[in-house]
Amino acid sequence: MALPVTNPAAPFEVTRLSHVVVQSADLDRSRAFYEEVIGLVLTESDANTLYLRGVEERCHHSLVIRRTANTPACERIGFRVAAEDDLDRASAFFSGSGLEAEFAEEPNQGRTLRVTDPGHLALEFCAHMPTRPRELADYGSHRGAAATRIDHVQAHVREIGAAAAFYGGLGFRVSEYASEDGTEQTAFRSIFLARKGNANDIVLASNLGPRLHHLAYVVHDAATTLMKVCDLLAGRGAREQVEWGPNRHGLGYEQFLYLRDPDGHRVELLSYPYQLIDLDDGPAGWSTSNADVANLWGPPAPESWFRVASPFDGVEPEPPALRG
Amino acid sequence: MALPVTNPAAPFEVTRLSHVVVQSADLDRSRAFYEEVIGLVLTESDANTLYLRGVEERCHHSLVIRRTANTPACERIGFRVAAEDDLDRASAFFSGSGLEAEFAEEPNQGRTLRVTDPGHLALEFCAHMPTRPRELADYGSHRGAAATRIDHVQAHVREIGAAAAFYGGLGFRVSEYASEDGTEQTAFRSIFLARKGNANDIVLASNLGPRLHHLAYVVHDAATTLMKVCDLLAGRGAREQVEWGPNRHGLGYEQFLYLRDPDGHRVELLSYPYQLIDLDDGPAGWSTSNADVANLWGPPAPESWFRVASPFDGVEPEPPALRG
Amino acid sequence: MALPVTNPAAPFEVTRLSHVVVQSADLDRSRAFYEEVIGLVLTESDANTLYLRGVEERCHHSLVIRRTANTPACERIGFRVAAEDDLDRASAFFSGSGLEAEFAEEPNQGRTLRVTDPGHLALEFCAHMPTRPRELADYGSHRGAAATRIDHVQAHVREIGAAAAFYGGLGFRVSEYASEDGTEQTAFRSIFLARKGNANDIVLASNLGPRLHHLAYVVHDAATTLMKVCDLLAGRGAREQVEWGPNRHGLGYEQFLYLRDPDGHRVELLSYPYQLIDLDDGPAGWSTSNADVANLWGPPAPESWFRVASPFDGVEPEPPALRG
Amino acid sequence: MALPVTNPAAPFEVTRLSHVVVQSADLDRSRAFYEEVIGLVLTESDANTLYLRGVEERCHHSLVIRRTANTPACERIGFRVAAEDDLDRASAFFSGSGLEAEFAEEPNQGRTLRVTDPGHLALEFCAHMPTRPRELADYGSHRGAAATRIDHVQAHVREIGAAAAFYGGLGFRVSEYASEDGTEQTAFRSIFLARKGNANDIVLASNLGPRLHHLAYVVHDAATTLMKVCDLLAGRGAREQVEWGPNRHGLGYEQFLYLRDPDGHRVELLSYPYQLIDLDDGPAGWSTSNADVANLWGPPAPESWFRVASPFDGVEPEPPALRG
Repeated sequence: MALPVTNPAAPFEVTRLSHVVVQSADLDRSRAFYEEVIGLVLTESDANTLYLRGVEERCHHSLVIRRTANTPACERIGFRVAAEDDLDRASAFFSGSGLEAEFAEEPNQGRTLRVTDPGHLALEFCAHMPTRPRELADYGSHRGAAATRIDHVQAHVREIGAAAAFYGGLGFRVSEYASEDGTEQTAFRSIFLARKGNANDIVLASNLGPRLHHLAYVVHDAATTLMKVCDLLAGRGAREQVEWGPNRHGLGYEQFLYLRDPDGHRVELLSYPYQLIDLDDGPAGWSTSNADVANLWGPPAPESWFRVASPFDGVEPEPPALRG
Repeated sequence: MALPVTNPAAPFEVTRLSHVVVQSADLDRSRAFYEEVIGLVLTESDANTLYLRGVEERCHHSLVIRRTANTPACERIGFRVAAEDDLDRASAFFSGSGLEAEFAEEPNQGRTLRVTDPGHLALEFCAHMPTRPRELADYGSHRGAAATRIDHVQAHVREIGAAAAFYGGLGFRVSEYASEDGTEQTAFRSIFLARKGNANDIVLASNLGPRLHHLAYVVHDAATTLMKVCDLLAGRGAREQVEWGPNRHGLGYEQFLYLRDPDGHRVELLSYPYQLIDLDDGPAGWSTSNADVANLWGPPAPESWFRVASPFDGVEPEPPALRG
Repeated sequence: MALPVTNPAAPFEVTRLSHVVVQSADLDRSRAFYEEVIGLVLTESDANTLYLRGVEERCHHSLVIRRTANTPACERIGFRVAAEDDLDRASAFFSGSGLEAEFAEEPNQGRTLRVTDPGHLALEFCAHMPTRPRELADYGSHRGAAATRIDHVQAHVREIGAAAAFYGGLGFRVSEYASEDGTEQTAFRSIFLARKGNANDIVLASNLGPRLHHLAYVVHDAATTLMKVCDLLAGRGAREQVEWGPNRHGLGYEQFLYLRDPDGHRVELLSYPYQLIDLDDGPAGWSTSNADVANLWGPPAPESWFRVASPFDGVEPEPPALRG
Repeated sequence: MALPVTNPAAPFEVTRLSHVVVQSADLDRSRAFYEEVIGLVLTESDANTLYLRGVEERCHHSLVIRRTANTPACERIGFRVAAEDDLDRASAFFSGSGLEAEFAEEPNQGRTLRVTDPGHLALEFCAHMPTRPRELADYGSHRGAAATRIDHVQAHVREIGAAAAFYGGLGFRVSEYASEDGTEQTAFRSIFLARKGNANDIVLASNLGPRLHHLAYVVHDAATTLMKVCDLLAGRGAREQVEWGPNRHGLGYEQFLYLRDPDGHRVELLSYPYQLIDLDDGPAGWSTSNADVANLWGPPAPESWFRVASPFDGVEPEPPALRG
């Protein structure tokens, strides 16, 4: 198997991971968690939906939470395209690729193109959102981690090669990856794909899929902030929501903390990732036998981190093709 | 006067600020400062040149320091282009624009195109550099601020409108600006221009020019790191090298510290800037009568910060046309 | 002049600086500042009084703020004694020393002995306060700097020698001092006196007195916290309340920030001072000609820091005897 | 069983935990660890001994490491007394108590009184050490955690009641304790005893004893420093030396990190403990069934933390009397 080739002439211009749509059994509880612990700003809400964004984000939302009466799942991973006509080019491209894509008019993000990728992940693409002022300097209203902006999602897919090839075709590049021996000669465990000038927009992991493993927000002054968030959860009697960390990744080198939101969705808070712009900077491969991949020090991740992830709404996850 | 228009079909693709070339009267002293205080990695050096980079940078250098027997000046501001043939397109474009551009073969950055911009700034463009491993995780060798990567330069120019228009034509966008009343109706004091997905690659200020006001590196855990760097300078008996800060900018909202290197060149260390990708996010204007523009709290900048800057090699600075 | 001799058999046992009583023209405004910016806990209040304490303090208050219709002054500096009968011994001692001391029954601190020291500072001594739980781990309720505990006061006195001798007689030791040439041979500018096992309980400075120069609270994670408090004040439109810092003292080596409260009283936030227990550790002398005494880097303190201080209620400050 | 009573008229004045003496199989390796990771200052060394101190400590040493050819053990826990004649009073007191105490002349700490406490811990008392300048402001020479000063030791004893009573008799007070139900009615798991004005000088835990569980140093800017130390160890290829943390204790509320030194001795780095001076502040009891006692969030301590500790030289540890 080989790493995906980055298409230098992508059919349309994806600029970055835009947002994630997840479900919740209790919106009040979700709101309290994301506002008070993660420190997101509630841009808007109605009886069934919360629209949240990071404190530096001008876009209307990077996280949408919808009320559900069922087991809370992930609904969509959203990407942003550069301009309105990229959506039309995207539509044409997906049709030509045999992928069923359809337009919807979505409140607060306008014309939205929906498609399921070859990893069975439910995606959507939009070109615009209403803007709001950055709340970066509204220091008096910052709470919890005051998470600044969405960084990436990690998704479990059962055909990592096909899924990664799809993103390569859209112009994503591989920043890092883990395989059995750290080269392209062996089966991939995870592939980090990037568009926005740093190391991560979407991370694909070979596992029971499709599932959302986590969504990730960047925080300032990570060492202090990550410790503080844990203290906050302790003060709320929610020590079990601290799943793993603070610690530091080998792959990517970010300081991290993994939390579980009140519906069980996993949220990563991380320090600022490195910049990845120059084409000279080829992918870095890690061997899965190297404990440093996941964390540079301390004991390994808890079992739950390897095993538990959010299903996609209405889709039964299946074991990975090559690892069953 | 109006803000420059961003050319959506730029003649060639500039990806980011690449590097700065400055002169020093004493390379040993410079090396000690940049290695021990700023925490850059010395990639390579010879009797007359130091090549330095941030701890996360894979490119060969983001700062070049050359020995001089004269008053130390700034030699060049370097930009990176996406690929080799962008240099040829750039050359053609500059010729067509009546700007004299010439190629040189530069050690450690290959074919390099040199041109003087309408603000009289000496620029160079390159497409490749040899790569080195990121030293982001070589924690035992980190020193001082362990600055991660170059972020931006600020240059004084005497015709800010013409200079900004040049960068707009190359596809730069305006993130923020300061003018007398905070709108485009009055004279600009400064214009922040960006390519790489955050708020700053080059900042133009209307002042005696051309001069290099400062070069800026990003640091992790800014609050702790900025305080630590000041302590380090105190411990070296160099308290006067701390020119201003730690403090926080209004415009851009970064935490900052301004140091003067041993030759008097100004270096800013700053926290991670916000992301600027979406085209929805229009420029933010600040009025120069608002003290918050420069710093959100505490007394204003010292006089030296407004007055002192590094000349460009062999060029006598002149007062700004519109403000004489 | 010589440094005061520490009395090894003090007539009664002072354990630490206990609290400060200051006046305010507007209690709501004071409360907002001390709760939201300094992060103190409001233990109790009535129409004319606020009782505040640090988040780790179990004692009822370390700061009392009383409403006044006049110019807000400092009322009292409070010390804690080990036990109830220390108050009786103190009373006897003061009588024998020709100092008029009188007992009062003070709400929330019981029997309280009041006396004016030879520096004309209004003091009070108490042995008990009602206790409250430490709010150190109530992370959800922490605000602003979440100041942990009172550390010291600095007072301006006009006869520093006589004033210091008084504290030496009560068993205080000198940790550090500044004089013209850094020895006991020249006039003292300031003397740092300590009881509680670190370097500071009361600092005496030779200046127009008696006046309260500042009261000081310790904060955790000082670099991050001090920067954050400045941001908070900026966000409140109160940038001018940041008087000086963040910076680091030479004398004492703490990181510091000086704020002015809404009535103009000066509050220092500082990092944890060093421990001073061993009798082997003699006083450290600094020369006032050494700029490092006040701050290790950056420009000197603003003029206001040298000139402005809070008068004591009903007492007209006078110039220092030896420096007129 | 009841908590020990604090003797208000202790037979001699212990001021604080002074130092710990441990053995090492490889002094070079120990030196590298304590200098480069913990950041202690090497005051002096000879072929068989290292004398180390924290960066703010003026005393000659707070950690002594002696070369051994056997399994590295703990040799002594050292306490400081106020003055020389306290040693004589201590000697008389121990004789009168049926404890065999003997004087030795110890290099760098003068006349030293040695005794074994009822918990079988090897103690020594000294009144003086040569002083050195604080290196608190020698920022250029700080390394690793730049640990500031020794805070406490934790020792395993098999008769926690008798051991605690001994320290109560010497004037130590109980700050906090853990017992089965959080009261004095049930068996004690641990008792925190303090002299120096904060919560800890010696912690006794009921376990296979006598053993040294850990020695603890305080660090500045704990969140940042603790994360940095882990990174440093990772960079040294010593990820397994990070035993537990960063995290935060319930009992005591300090942020903490437990490391294992190259000989297996456990070192805690912790944030500044709260102040404990007022006699009003009674002991806080925790139930051992409360997971928060040890850490406020995240998974429990690894097994090794409960099981592994350093024996005392030449003494075979035995199970606790009441818990066998």
